[in-house]
Amino acid sequence: MPAAEFPSVSEAVSQETINSYADLSGDYNPIHVDEAAGAASEFGGTIAHGPIALQTFFRSLTEWLGTTAPPAGTEIKIVFRAPTRPGDTIHCELRERDDDGEAIEIATECVNQDGTTVIGAKTSIPE
Amino acid sequence: MPAAEFPSVSEAVSQETINSYADLSGDYNPIHVDEAAGAASEFGGTIAHGPIALQTFFRSLTEWLGTTAPPAGTEIKIVFRAPTRPGDTIHCELRERDDDGEAIEIATECVNQDGTTVIGAKTSIPE
Repeated sequence: MPAAEFPSVSEAVSQETINSYADLSGDYNPIHVDEAAGAASEFGGTIAHGPIALQTFFRSLTEWLGTTAPPAGTEIKIVFRAPTRPGDTIHCELRERDDDGEAIEIATECVNQDGTTVIGAKTSIPE
Repeated sequence: MPAAEFPSVSEAVSQETINSYADLSGDYNPIHVDEAAGAASEFGGTIAHGPIALQTFFRSLTEWLGTTAPPAGTEIKIVFRAPTRPGDTIHCELRERDDDGEAIEIATECVNQDGTTVIGAKTSIPE
């Protein structure tokens, strides 16, 4: 059984976070790591790699489930809604929960410090 | 328009990769970073954080699209099928592609060196 309360894990994203993720993933796209290229882009600055903004979701989910990883068969539907930028603090909020006895379905959003939803995620966890 | 060929980005995952991701995400769950705890678990060894195995998918997708990030409104449905372990090499393969003029729909799988699918992803990219 999941915990009574959905834990809202929060994470501050810095250019250093983004640079570390570039090293880790091998994704050195200038939009992420080159501040001049970011400034000249439609975004007006560097943006985080997509998976960085997802981290608070994965951490909240596994902490809530008390598991190490999403259980096998877990389906996650993700929609990228807005970019995450250096200086943002992202946290994950539970919006809806449903349980039909076969799967737990939750809707969550990763939200930045301005209240903007950067990612929406719907997750189905087999019971 | 996406590139003619879907690029199969490949990535080797090591314990060092996993430790770096723990530093980045703040997720130091023993199943990821403690080799003794991993060995004593149902997995018989440490396993990678979920997002690590997704990296080849995100890199293949954005390289294919020629974009820096999934376009706004992109929906990605992810199923975790098997764990990723240190020593694994993951790559991403295109399985299906459909285009109805409003969205490009693709089905991809992240596959390890043994041919085991570790992640399945269905992506809908608005046109």
